[in-house]
Amino acid sequence: MNPIQAPTLEMNFLLQQVFEADHVWQTLPAIAELLDLDTAAAILEEGAKFCGEQIQPLNRAGDEQGVCFDGTQVKTPDGYPNVFRQYAEGGWVGLCGEPEYGGMGMPKMLGVLLDEMGYSASNAFTLYGALTAGAALCIHAHGTEELKALYLPKLYSGEWAGAMDMTEPQAGSDLRNIATRAVPQADGSYRINGSKMFITGGDHDLTSNVIHLVLAKIQGSDGISLFLVPKFKVNAAGDLGDANGVTVGAVEHKMGLKGSATCVMNYDDAQGYLIGRANRGLVCMFTMMNYERLSIGIQGLGSAQSAYQMAAEYAKERLQGLAAGGSTTGAQADPLIVHGDVRRMLLNIRALTEAGRALAVMTGMQLDRAKYAAVDADKQQATRFAALLTPVAKAFLSDRGFDACVMAQQVFGGHGYISETGVEQLVRDTRIAQIYEGTNGIQAIDFLGRKLAGDNLVTVTEFFAMLRQQQQSCAPAFAQELQQLQTLQQQFLDVIASINQQKHDKPALINAVAVDALDAFGYLLYGHFWLMMADRALKATTLPAAFVSGKQQLCRYYFAKLLPRVASHLAVVAAGDDSVMQPAADWF
Amino acid sequence: MNPIQAPTLEMNFLLQQVFEADHVWQTLPAIAELLDLDTAAAILEEGAKFCGEQIQPLNRAGDEQGVCFDGTQVKTPDGYPNVFRQYAEGGWVGLCGEPEYGGMGMPKMLGVLLDEMGYSASNAFTLYGALTAGAALCIHAHGTEELKALYLPKLYSGEWAGAMDMTEPQAGSDLRNIATRAVPQADGSYRINGSKMFITGGDHDLTSNVIHLVLAKIQGSDGISLFLVPKFKVNAAGDLGDANGVTVGAVEHKMGLKGSATCVMNYDDAQGYLIGRANRGLVCMFTMMNYERLSIGIQGLGSAQSAYQMAAEYAKERLQGLAAGGSTTGAQADPLIVHGDVRRMLLNIRALTEAGRALAVMTGMQLDRAKYAAVDADKQQATRFAALLTPVAKAFLSDRGFDACVMAQQVFGGHGYISETGVEQLVRDTRIAQIYEGTNGIQAIDFLGRKLAGDNLVTVTEFFAMLRQQQQSCAPAFAQELQQLQTLQQQFLDVIASINQQKHDKPALINAVAVDALDAFGYLLYGHFWLMMADRALKATTLPAAFVSGKQQLCRYYFAKLLPRVASHLAVVAAGDDSVMQPAADWF
Repeated sequence: MNPIQAPTLEMNFLLQQVFEADHVWQTLPAIAELLDLDTAAAILEEGAKFCGEQIQPLNRAGDEQGVCFDGTQVKTPDGYPNVFRQYAEGGWVGLCGEPEYGGMGMPKMLGVLLDEMGYSASNAFTLYGALTAGAALCIHAHGTEELKALYLPKLYSGEWAGAMDMTEPQAGSDLRNIATRAVPQADGSYRINGSKMFITGGDHDLTSNVIHLVLAKIQGSDGISLFLVPKFKVNAAGDLGDANGVTVGAVEHKMGLKGSATCVMNYDDAQGYLIGRANRGLVCMFTMMNYERLSIGIQGLGSAQSAYQMAAEYAKERLQGLAAGGSTTGAQADPLIVHGDVRRMLLNIRALTEAGRALAVMTGMQLDRAKYAAVDADKQQATRFAALLTPVAKAFLSDRGFDACVMAQQVFGGHGYISETGVEQLVRDTRIAQIYEGTNGIQAIDFLGRKLAGDNLVTVTEFFAMLRQQQQSCAPAFAQELQQLQTLQQQFLDVIASINQQKHDKPALINAVAVDALDAFGYLLYGHFWLMMADRALKATTLPAAFVSGKQQLCRYYFAKLLPRVASHLAVVAAGDDSVMQPAADWF
Repeated sequence: MNPIQAPTLEMNFLLQQVFEADHVWQTLPAIAELLDLDTAAAILEEGAKFCGEQIQPLNRAGDEQGVCFDGTQVKTPDGYPNVFRQYAEGGWVGLCGEPEYGGMGMPKMLGVLLDEMGYSASNAFTLYGALTAGAALCIHAHGTEELKALYLPKLYSGEWAGAMDMTEPQAGSDLRNIATRAVPQADGSYRINGSKMFITGGDHDLTSNVIHLVLAKIQGSDGISLFLVPKFKVNAAGDLGDANGVTVGAVEHKMGLKGSATCVMNYDDAQGYLIGRANRGLVCMFTMMNYERLSIGIQGLGSAQSAYQMAAEYAKERLQGLAAGGSTTGAQADPLIVHGDVRRMLLNIRALTEAGRALAVMTGMQLDRAKYAAVDADKQQATRFAALLTPVAKAFLSDRGFDACVMAQQVFGGHGYISETGVEQLVRDTRIAQIYEGTNGIQAIDFLGRKLAGDNLVTVTEFFAMLRQQQQSCAPAFAQELQQLQTLQQQFLDVIASINQQKHDKPALINAVAVDALDAFGYLLYGHFWLMMADRALKATTLPAAFVSGKQQLCRYYFAKLLPRVASHLAVVAAGDDSVMQPAADWF
């Protein structure tokens, strides 16, 4: 199996032709002064090189070896500490971090592509850096100047790592009932006591300190607050001091992601520092959550990209059976790629992965506009669009990513079930992306309940108007696709409007139809991306001919074979919740 | 987690009300004299008890421990040999075996339900017995009297086990290119040399001998023949002699099914006995294959049933979040089962699993009619129907079974990803059912290419006519569902007829659209089963009220939420193969 090659041509195509990043960046002064398309391309090349040469070789062995917990300290698989140090020194952890604290200040629109490369190379390894970047983001947005100055440089440089400590045994999807307690101390800090579970990267040997962001309730209050709790105390000069009462209770045995430590964390009189305002911890967490949810969607996307490459390579090399019309070569057996069903699987993966990458870039772009736009109205619109797209990016990318890995495994036949081949690891590793960081069901309820019905479809209508505007510049050759998309967009709005009208009489309705609503939206949006990619490729002058014709063919495939799913999901939404809510609980 | 309870009430409902097994058995003299509904119910109870009490407790530990290979002998997980002996002594391996050789002579219509229980309890354990029964079936159908007398009693009694040795590194889905060779000997036996891979149960410590059915080419011929090759030689009295040159080269490390030994087998001058005619080995294998493919479909079904029970139990116990309309109990949190999206997942699993069980029973029934029917025309019709249904049972049951396990895992949230919970093992174990015994893509090509287009839709038209006849006895309350089904059946036939007309001009067409054709048929057929189950439950006088109303509710759910998939898959079939075949091989 060849090493995975990050698809930098595809990535540059999205930045340059589809999203015209140079125009976008001109509207974001902080970005424009740092970055142009050539620099972005150079960063992509560097990232691809590092991920392919350094991270990917750790992946299989990391799965076999797993993390090891001796009762005190977590040890990551061989090679992780060394490569993480190089990764950090290369500036990759701080890629999108704030320049004033040592970050590189790159936009998320670029960052998502590097995230994808990392996850393609290794889900487990890449999580450590992703969580560190997420923790830094939260500290930057809500921490005091003192905390920022003390912690951000070390997090961006990857000397220290971050972790998000939310879940407790009785409080997973529903955080209201967390029991971890914080008691104010005379010096302004808090004493934290309690226990958390499912803490990704809760402990490891990659860095000299782990900075935990811990949700807890301040004594006497039922509100939830957020605290920075380092594994080792940090003095004002940034030097490490004593252990801080943060210990690992256990490390979980999991289906996959075995190189990533999933920890039970215990806090015994640990010293913590309030981040943001008291009782407003969930708000602080949610700043980070938009980014983290996008990142976890990209975990699915990155896995899908690897899965595609592995399966396509295998399909071109593995000789088995003859082409339906007779052998293409006269040999005893043709490569799998001659078989329509094998092509179907590869085309499904590829069409969904390329559109998925566009979704990641678009979501990143909205996050960038929300943060950096010079014009306030742009900022506000982008904030709404980012909020609309985030649950879709998280759920749809991870769902389709898992499907992609399963399909790629199918291309391998029996060999796909054998550990040595590597594709079964992708299935196991990627599965968690549908679950953590808010299950995909919860994403869908957020999407339909808050993001669509919550503002009576104002944002989604505005969003569709933006898509239509982009679509109108398409070449006349795409008139039929354009028509199909616009009809489906209207059908989508009609069905959702009907749900919105019923929601007060039927309180369970949103929850019952949310997943199909999100899927309908996802497949519809991917139709838009395929139209744009096909059109923009046709108009570009610098792309290889095979690339351009490939985009036309894959666009046609998408509209013929995958877009019909929109109607199917909409039918399920329209069917409402009666048949879902009717059975009595004890009948199940 | 409570032990899995086999759904004997559901099973008896299918036998008694839906398929009226007593009437069927009256047309099968060999069965009628052995079995009535009460005896069948008693056998189901016994089986449920054994599977729940003996087999299921081995399942988790078997996954953790796995099989062990010391370079000579394969050791199964602790407890396997003891429970297999009890299983065999209970007559379960020989349940559907021939009475004249010590089998119990039960119909497959009943056997499928026991298979389901076994797979529900443990995929890995149950395979050993399933392969033994399959080998016996093949020997009975094609072996000489001498081989039958020598081997069948030991296989039915489970003293010896069976294995099917087909795949070689260069010959998986396409067996034409196998390289294992057989040289005729003066005594009428053959000397076998070569190597096979992916041999399930190729070696183990459950029985004193393993009887391999090996595909090989007789020296000087390119035809494929089938040979019986025991691990230890057997003398005329049935005593074990020397080792027979059949050794294990390696045991695979796999995604799941870790309690089942997947072996590389080497034959060094092993003594083998021709089964059936020379060069007709594939025909012999296919006798068994109908049964084995059904069995592997049922692996998916059994896993789905376990997954449902685990997830439903968890959803009723796990407190998380409040019901959308406010708490149902006034407590801090409601059980997951109040949430529409959790119900959606459970209802999807259950609706597909209950209909799936009906598919298994119907397929078993056709196999029984094909084998035992008193009237020749019945036999011939049933042979065609069994051939039509077998690829559907294999692929659709295992695909929906895998989906079910993944959805059940989702119900568990983060806990579903942790090994201790057990549901992730189901996902890993079941995944292989979509691959082995002919990948599901190959099943679909067999279905569309041979079973539908191969006879110009004659069989499927006849089959739909039979369904319509059954549907016409439904209560008037189901008029709307009846109408929906009949419209879809006609649409299905129209789309397939169009494919059939194009197949000569477009040789790649069948292969490219086969999977969607099979899925459309599967969801359509499940619609039929739901209609029948709802109607027959309503008409029954002896069923619990909650059972009857549950069937009405789930039928309504199926028609509202799952039947729309038929149209979606048909649209994909109708879109043809142009967009699939267009991209050049090296573009992938």
